[in-house]
Amino acid sequence: MLTAEIICVGTELLMGQVLNTNEHFIASHLPEAGIALNHSSVVGDNPQRLKDALLLAKSRSDIIIMTGGLGPTDDDLTKETVAQVFGKKLVFHAECMDKMVSYLKESGKNLTKNNEKQAYLPEGSIVIENNNGTAPGCIIEDDGKAAIMLPGPPREMVPMFNETVLPYLKNKSGTVLYSRVLRLFGIGESRAAAMCDDLIKNQTNPTIAPYAKEGEVTFRVTASAENEATAKAMADETVSAMYERLGEYIYGEGDETSLAEVVVNELNKKKLTVSTAESCTGGLIGKMITEVSGASSVYGFGFVTYANEAKMQLVGVKHETLEKYGAVSEETAKEMAEGARRVSGSDIAVSVTGIAGPTGGTKEKPVGLVYIGISDKQGCEVFRFVQHGDRERVRNKSALCALDIIRRRIQYA
Amino acid sequence: MLTAEIICVGTELLMGQVLNTNEHFIASHLPEAGIALNHSSVVGDNPQRLKDALLLAKSRSDIIIMTGGLGPTDDDLTKETVAQVFGKKLVFHAECMDKMVSYLKESGKNLTKNNEKQAYLPEGSIVIENNNGTAPGCIIEDDGKAAIMLPGPPREMVPMFNETVLPYLKNKSGTVLYSRVLRLFGIGESRAAAMCDDLIKNQTNPTIAPYAKEGEVTFRVTASAENEATAKAMADETVSAMYERLGEYIYGEGDETSLAEVVVNELNKKKLTVSTAESCTGGLIGKMITEVSGASSVYGFGFVTYANEAKMQLVGVKHETLEKYGAVSEETAKEMAEGARRVSGSDIAVSVTGIAGPTGGTKEKPVGLVYIGISDKQGCEVFRFVQHGDRERVRNKSALCALDIIRRRIQYA
Repeated sequence: MLTAEIICVGTELLMGQVLNTNEHFIASHLPEAGIALNHSSVVGDNPQRLKDALLLAKSRSDIIIMTGGLGPTDDDLTKETVAQVFGKKLVFHAECMDKMVSYLKESGKNLTKNNEKQAYLPEGSIVIENNNGTAPGCIIEDDGKAAIMLPGPPREMVPMFNETVLPYLKNKSGTVLYSRVLRLFGIGESRAAAMCDDLIKNQTNPTIAPYAKEGEVTFRVTASAENEATAKAMADETVSAMYERLGEYIYGEGDETSLAEVVVNELNKKKLTVSTAESCTGGLIGKMITEVSGASSVYGFGFVTYANEAKMQLVGVKHETLEKYGAVSEETAKEMAEGARRVSGSDIAVSVTGIAGPTGGTKEKPVGLVYIGISDKQGCEVFRFVQHGDRERVRNKSALCALDIIRRRIQYA
Repeated sequence: MLTAEIICVGTELLMGQVLNTNEHFIASHLPEAGIALNHSSVVGDNPQRLKDALLLAKSRSDIIIMTGGLGPTDDDLTKETVAQVFGKKLVFHAECMDKMVSYLKESGKNLTKNNEKQAYLPEGSIVIENNNGTAPGCIIEDDGKAAIMLPGPPREMVPMFNETVLPYLKNKSGTVLYSRVLRLFGIGESRAAAMCDDLIKNQTNPTIAPYAKEGEVTFRVTASAENEATAKAMADETVSAMYERLGEYIYGEGDETSLAEVVVNELNKKKLTVSTAESCTGGLIGKMITEVSGASSVYGFGFVTYANEAKMQLVGVKHETLEKYGAVSEETAKEMAEGARRVSGSDIAVSVTGIAGPTGGTKEKPVGLVYIGISDKQGCEVFRFVQHGDRERVRNKSALCALDIIRRRIQYA
């Protein structure tokens, strides 16, 4: 099995200014390319230490994947140092320069003298196009070793990795891996794992890797075989067994999907529209829905009713309701959802009102208390949650719960 | 200056199952202890590779900070390997055992045979108490070098670092560092760097570290001296010079601040309220504003007018305007902002209408074209942008631009 090593370059990582999500992203995708990651390290923008790290990596790993240090400034030294360690010259790539010029032009910016440096790559490089920034990436191969250089900003790095690096790596490695990624909502990692304990305990091939991220649980089922058909059949069999156990929590599949995307697609299929009335989430549900391209066919109206006046004026919550039950109550959530549906004319409306914290909680209504209402032609239902965590987490989980409530509702619409 | 090195131990990190937040946390606190972090690496639960990493770290760094591998199972090897590299025996600590027993008892669990292993520490260890788990941490010193071992779970590691390790490190280091972090919006990294090129070129102490993250640029200015007053004076002088060059783009200071927070604080100071009318950002500006705790005193009403009907019905955009100029136009942005201000009664209203993509662009109105309107008692102004990047980026940058437009506007309110 080919071995890889990650080197993330940037003093900002060692100063703790930036959380290193690149390492995590790359590490999580290497298994599907059939490549083993044995080392990962961070080096500052220091030529000698970078050189030492590269020499060490070259001595022990087949593939070195680097992020960062491709910027236009003098302290960006990745290409220069790799070229030195691999005994290559840096050569000017006119097509990289052209791409940079047109990228900057579209962004309404001009090329600076600094940017020119970014069009120089080690000789013999495979160019990795960057559609989201100025720095092209590149791959050089020498003596059975490969060095892959990618820019640091995740927004630039991730598409370049997916479009160019991952296919390159899969081709380089002999084994075929086939993965399916199950996305679950409404269940914790340990409970979900316990519910398919027998499958997880006996795993060898396919492997089942659970992980929890913000408010949801993911299982990656990966089978390896000599060809894709065999690997796929193996993964499919395990996935079927998992659906039997966890079906109601599985909202979709794939790394890129989201609860919002599933909701938008389901609404589209059933030709239904949704509107939102948000208090403590302040627009977050609207933001999540409209993250999905094409959301306009199912979503037209959103109300951010952060103030009580807005709840009354925009979605017709009654003054008496707010007086008697408070803004964070089942009754207010109900009137918000019903009002949003009435005013917008949507088929479904969802509402959220709660206490995101850190302040504002009482003994009766603690921080994290959230009511989510859903209204459709069948009537209105309100769900009560007590979310744990800080302000951001309470808001995020509440928005995701609201989307999941829509998802479950339209299954019966 | 003392040098440190982080080694995070755990195969789950190399498999991409867990995001390494420990590295980021520790790295972000070392500067305040006056300790330079030159290297950080991740090693799996593999004895030989862990030993190699330790030998390398011991040869080049004064302090080695390790997380992970202190658990009760056979693949937890950190203490064993450190003891071997430093030539120490592992000795039983009865008081660690007692603490573990009482911790487990409080959690309603029993000691397993495995846990006993966790009470063995390298001889001569300074014990680091763990109040949130079974694994005690420890520090050993030898030959002018120190190795600090902490458990992997952040909820155990973080309090142990804050309570024991940070004071230990501050005491060990003679130097004091003082940092100021400048946050800029509306200018790219290379242009900002070019505007204080002279300062960056001549930097030795203070150092100036620029970096770009989502839509903004940050400069960290760090001075080291024998006492805080001197370090602060040195950093302040450089920062003053940077304000002279970049003042209008600097919206705030500090790692934790955000454009939304600065806007909310400024509105609060001037006792002004703001409302939002969002089309392509779909609630994102509202979400950003309400991320700030206490936003309710300045923000009460938001309109997500994704559909043309919503633009007309909620904020009174004229049908003729939409017909004649289209939803993405200066005129529509103007009517959205004015309507939001009128309906909500806020002092200021901001509107966004644009084409976030990936579809919906034309030659005259390309993807990324965004109009942002701002209305207050002085009148209404509309700004035109062409944002580059994918849907998420266009939306993010547009929302940040809208916040920056509010920020600049209230400077003159």
